[in-house]
Amino acid sequence: MPYRAPTGDYEFIFSQLINLDQVSQTEKFADVDSDTVSAILTEAGKMSEEVLYPTLRNGDLTPAVLENGKVRSSPGFAEAFSAIGDGGWISTSADPEFGGMGLPFTVTMAVNEMMASANLALQLNPLLTQGHIEALEAHATEELKQTYLPKLNSGAWNGTMNLTEPQAGSDVGALSTKAERNDDGTYAITGQKIFITWGDSDFAENVVHLVLARLPDGGKGTKGISLFVVPRNIPDENGEPGVANSLKVVSLEHKMGIHGSPTAVMQYDGATGWLVGEEHDGMKCMFTMMNNARLNVGGQGVGVAEAAYQHALAYALDRKQGPTPLGNGTIVDHADVRRMLATMKAETFASRAIALESALAIDMGNATGEKAWKARAAFLTPIAKAFGTDTGIKVADLGIQVHGGMGFIEETGAAQYARDVRITSIYEGTNGIQSMDLVARKLMDGGEAAYALIEEIENFAESARATRPNMAEMVWQASETLREATEWMVKQGDLNERFAGCVPFLNGFARILGAHFHLKAACAEDGEGPRTKLARFYIKRLLPEHAGLLAHATQGAKELYDLGIDDLSA
Amino acid sequence: MPYRAPTGDYEFIFSQLINLDQVSQTEKFADVDSDTVSAILTEAGKMSEEVLYPTLRNGDLTPAVLENGKVRSSPGFAEAFSAIGDGGWISTSADPEFGGMGLPFTVTMAVNEMMASANLALQLNPLLTQGHIEALEAHATEELKQTYLPKLNSGAWNGTMNLTEPQAGSDVGALSTKAERNDDGTYAITGQKIFITWGDSDFAENVVHLVLARLPDGGKGTKGISLFVVPRNIPDENGEPGVANSLKVVSLEHKMGIHGSPTAVMQYDGATGWLVGEEHDGMKCMFTMMNNARLNVGGQGVGVAEAAYQHALAYALDRKQGPTPLGNGTIVDHADVRRMLATMKAETFASRAIALESALAIDMGNATGEKAWKARAAFLTPIAKAFGTDTGIKVADLGIQVHGGMGFIEETGAAQYARDVRITSIYEGTNGIQSMDLVARKLMDGGEAAYALIEEIENFAESARATRPNMAEMVWQASETLREATEWMVKQGDLNERFAGCVPFLNGFARILGAHFHLKAACAEDGEGPRTKLARFYIKRLLPEHAGLLAHATQGAKELYDLGIDDLSA
Repeated sequence: MPYRAPTGDYEFIFSQLINLDQVSQTEKFADVDSDTVSAILTEAGKMSEEVLYPTLRNGDLTPAVLENGKVRSSPGFAEAFSAIGDGGWISTSADPEFGGMGLPFTVTMAVNEMMASANLALQLNPLLTQGHIEALEAHATEELKQTYLPKLNSGAWNGTMNLTEPQAGSDVGALSTKAERNDDGTYAITGQKIFITWGDSDFAENVVHLVLARLPDGGKGTKGISLFVVPRNIPDENGEPGVANSLKVVSLEHKMGIHGSPTAVMQYDGATGWLVGEEHDGMKCMFTMMNNARLNVGGQGVGVAEAAYQHALAYALDRKQGPTPLGNGTIVDHADVRRMLATMKAETFASRAIALESALAIDMGNATGEKAWKARAAFLTPIAKAFGTDTGIKVADLGIQVHGGMGFIEETGAAQYARDVRITSIYEGTNGIQSMDLVARKLMDGGEAAYALIEEIENFAESARATRPNMAEMVWQASETLREATEWMVKQGDLNERFAGCVPFLNGFARILGAHFHLKAACAEDGEGPRTKLARFYIKRLLPEHAGLLAHATQGAKELYDLGIDDLSA
Repeated sequence: MPYRAPTGDYEFIFSQLINLDQVSQTEKFADVDSDTVSAILTEAGKMSEEVLYPTLRNGDLTPAVLENGKVRSSPGFAEAFSAIGDGGWISTSADPEFGGMGLPFTVTMAVNEMMASANLALQLNPLLTQGHIEALEAHATEELKQTYLPKLNSGAWNGTMNLTEPQAGSDVGALSTKAERNDDGTYAITGQKIFITWGDSDFAENVVHLVLARLPDGGKGTKGISLFVVPRNIPDENGEPGVANSLKVVSLEHKMGIHGSPTAVMQYDGATGWLVGEEHDGMKCMFTMMNNARLNVGGQGVGVAEAAYQHALAYALDRKQGPTPLGNGTIVDHADVRRMLATMKAETFASRAIALESALAIDMGNATGEKAWKARAAFLTPIAKAFGTDTGIKVADLGIQVHGGMGFIEETGAAQYARDVRITSIYEGTNGIQSMDLVARKLMDGGEAAYALIEEIENFAESARATRPNMAEMVWQASETLREATEWMVKQGDLNERFAGCVPFLNGFARILGAHFHLKAACAEDGEGPRTKLARFYIKRLLPEHAGLLAHATQGAKELYDLGIDDLSA
C-alpha cells in the first residue's frame, strides 16, 4: 500500500480555490511561476513517496533511543533526512541569500504536508528547523545568520525550539531557565527544558537550540524572557562544530506515537548562548514564527489524514467480507464503509483547503504588508491548526474502523497513524488554546476579519446559486447562523463567556469554511465530477453539524461553572 | 490517582431511572433485594479498586507473551484473576445449580463495568467466560454442564469464543473450520481461528474453547455451522484436566492496546470436541449469548470512560497552569477544561444509563417472557453497544487532551485508556454492524419498539414540563425529530437506503435517549443538585448535535454511491 502524493489536489486548490497567482503578482514572489510550483510539488512528492514513506514503520518499531547521552535515530532515518536536506526541502521558503529557495509559504505547506504523510516523526525534524530558521532570519545578527543559516538550510545542522518547562507548559511566562551575561557578550544558560522535539540527532553535524530564558533583570511573565541560540557544539573559527557546549539530553520520553521522533528533556548547565533579538524581547521573536509553526502543525494533521485515507481505501478495495450491494465484491461497497471513506476524503480536502488558504494569507500579508491580509492570516491560523489536527485524528480513527479487527493489529499500520497524529492537537498550543486565541485576540478587531470571511462565504454562495442551487442555499443558511454566533461572541465583554464555547465555535466556523471550499470546488467543475459529488456529500451530510456546534458555542459560562468541583467529583 | 468505583451512580440509576425493583417482583428474581444488590456493588467495587486497578499498567508495560507454546500472562494478573474467581464475579448471573449467584444481568453489567474500569485487558477473561457459560447453560447436555460449568463459574477454568477466521470476520457464515464425526460421539475439529481473546492463560487449570465449525454435510453460510466445546486438556474420569487436546496457540497479535490480553491465533488439528446444541444449529446457540456479550462490550466502553474521567479530573484538580478565572488555581478552572470534564462526565452517565436500561430489558424479557420487553432489549442492545464504546473512545480521547502534553506521555496512563478502549467499537460486531442491525432487523417490526421508546421519551418530557420546563421542551422537540427520522427509516424498502445513514441514526437516537435519562435524573432531584446541573450541560450543549446526526441519517444511498471508486481514488 504505497503512499501517493496528492499533487493534483494541491494544484487544483492553488489554481481554483485560493488563486496562488496573486502571490506571483507581488514583487516579493515575482519569480514564482506555476511551472516552478508544479516541479517542486512533483519532486517533493516523489521524495516523500520513495524515500520517506518506506521508513515510516521503522520509526514506530525501532524508536529513537538515548545511548551514552547521544540519540540513536531509527533505522533509515539518517538516509531519509539526507534526501530532505539535499533536495532543499528544509528551506523552500528560506531566504535565498543563505541558501533557501525563497518560495511562498503556501508551497512549503504543501511540501511539508507530503513529508508529514510519509513519516510524521521524521518530518518534525525539518519542521522545527524551519521555525528556527525563520526566527533567526527575522531577529538574529548578521554574524549569527552567516554562521547558522546556511548550515540549517542545507540540513548539515538541525534546529530545535526550547520553550516548555515542567511548570510552564501552555503558560510560557512561568519559565525559570536563567540567562546570565558573560564578559564576552555571550550568555550562560542554565535550566531544564522538556518536550524538546529532536533534542539531539545522530545524523546532524550539529544541533542548534533556540532557548527561551530569563535574565536576572528580566521581569516576571512573558515580558522578561529573552531568546538565545545555544549550539550543541560551539562553532569554531571556520564555522565548523567545535567544542561541546555545557548541555545534555537527560532522557527521552515514552510516547503514544511518533516513536521515531526523540522527545528530549534537555539540561543546560551554564551553556554558552548568543542573544537573538533584544534582551527581554524573546517572546516577540517567538511570535514571528508561531503563526507558521501552528499552521504547519495543522498541515501535519492534514498530511496524516491523507495517508490514513489512502491506507484505508486500499484496504477497503481489497478486503472481501460478506455479500455486497454492488459488484466490486469488497467492503468498499458496503454503504457504511463508503460513508466512512467519503467522510475521510471530504474532511481531508476541507482541512487542506483551509490550511492552504491560511498560508496564502500569510504570504500575501508578508508580500503586500496589507493589514487586511495580515488580519485574515491571524484569524485563519488557529482554525487551520485546530481543524487540521482534529481532522487528522478523526480520519486516522476512521481508518482504524474501516480496517475492522485488523485496524487494532499494529502490523497493518492503521493504528500508527492514529497514535502518531494524536499529539498534533496538543503541541504548538493545544486546540483549546487555539480556540481561546480565536475568540479573544482574533475578535479584538470587533469581528472585522471574521465578518469579512463570512461575507465572502455568503457572496460566493449567492453566486453559486445559478449552478449549484441546493448546495449554495445550505452554505448560505449556515453562514447566517455563523454570523449570529460570531455576533454573540463579539458582544461578550467577559472573555470567559466566550471561552466557555470557544472550541465548538472554532469547530463550527471550520465546518462552514470547509463547506465554502467544497462549494467552490464544485463550481470549478463542469457537471457532476468527483469534486462535486464529494462537495454534495460534505454539504448535505457533514455541514449540518454546524448547528449543534454553534448552539453549544453560545451558551456562555454561567451554567458551565455551576458545575462546581464538588459536582464534578460527585 | 486511584480508581473509585461509582457505586452511588449505579444505585441511583437502579432506583431512580430504570426501576430495578421490577426485576425483584418477578418470580425468577424474587430473592433479589436491594440490600443484596448494594452489598454486591460494594464488594465488587472494592475488589476492582484494590486488587484489579493496581495491575492495570502491568498489562500495558509487560504484555502477555507466548513462550514454548504457552501464554505467560502479565505480572499480577494471576493473583488478580484469583480474586475475581474467588469473589464469584465471573458467575454473578450464572445458574446457582452450577455455582452461580443467579443475580439479574443488570447487576452483572455494573460489576463488569467496574472490572473494565480497573483493568480492561484482564476483565476480558471473565467476560468471555461468562458468554461461554451462558451458551452452555442454554444449549449443552446435562453431562457437559456438570463437567464444565462448576469449573468455569469458579474461575478454575477459563472459557473462550472461537468464531473468527481470516477470511470470515464480520461474515461468520464464510468460515471453513471443519468438524468430523468420530465413532464415539465426539467430533474432530480442524482449522484455524484468529482474534481469540485469552486463547490461553497460565493461571487457569484448563482453557475451554467454544468453536464454530462446519460438518461435512453442513450447508453453506451460517445455517451449516455447528458449535463445539473443545477443551485444551480433555477432562479425565474425575473431571480434572487430562491429556492435552490437538490444539495450540500459534501466535499472539501485537495490538494497539489491551496488551495484557493475549489475542491468539488458534490451530485445531483434529482436536476432540463435544457438540453443543443440535448439529448445524451453532449460530442459534451463539445468538443466545450475543445480546449479553454486545451489551457487555458497551459496558466496557462505559467502564473505561469512567476511569479515564476520574484520571483526568484528578489531573485537572492538581495541575497549575496560567492564571485561572476562579480561585482553585488549577486547570479545572479554565472554561475549556471544565467543558471537557463536564462532557466526559455527562457522556459517561448517559451511556451508563442506556446500558443498564438495556440490561434491565433483557432481565425483564427473560423473567416475564413478554414480547415487548424482548423487543425493547433487542432494540436497545445495538445502541448501548455502539454508544457505550463510542463514549469510551471519546472520553478517553478527551482525557488525553485534558492532560495536555503529559497526555501523550505513556507514564501518565491517559494514553493507555485510549489505546485499550479503541478495540471496543470493533469487536463483538463493529459499530457499523450494530447500526445496520438497528435499522434493519430491529425495525422489522415496523418500528414498534422504536416508537414505544420515543413515546416514553415524549411522555416523560411532557410530565417534566412542570419542574424542568426548558430542558423538557428541548428533549420533547428532539424526540419529535427522532420520530420523523425513524419514520423515514421505516419507510425505506431498500435496506441500503437505511444503511447509508445507519451510524448517524444510531448516534442521534443515543443522543436523545441520553438526554431522556439526564432529564429523568434532574427530575429525581430536588432543586439544583449535581445531576440537574449535569443534565443541563448535556441537554443544552450536547443534545443539539442530534439535529446534524439525524439530517445525515436520512440522506439515503444514491448520492453516497454516486461517489464511485474512481471518485474516491481521484
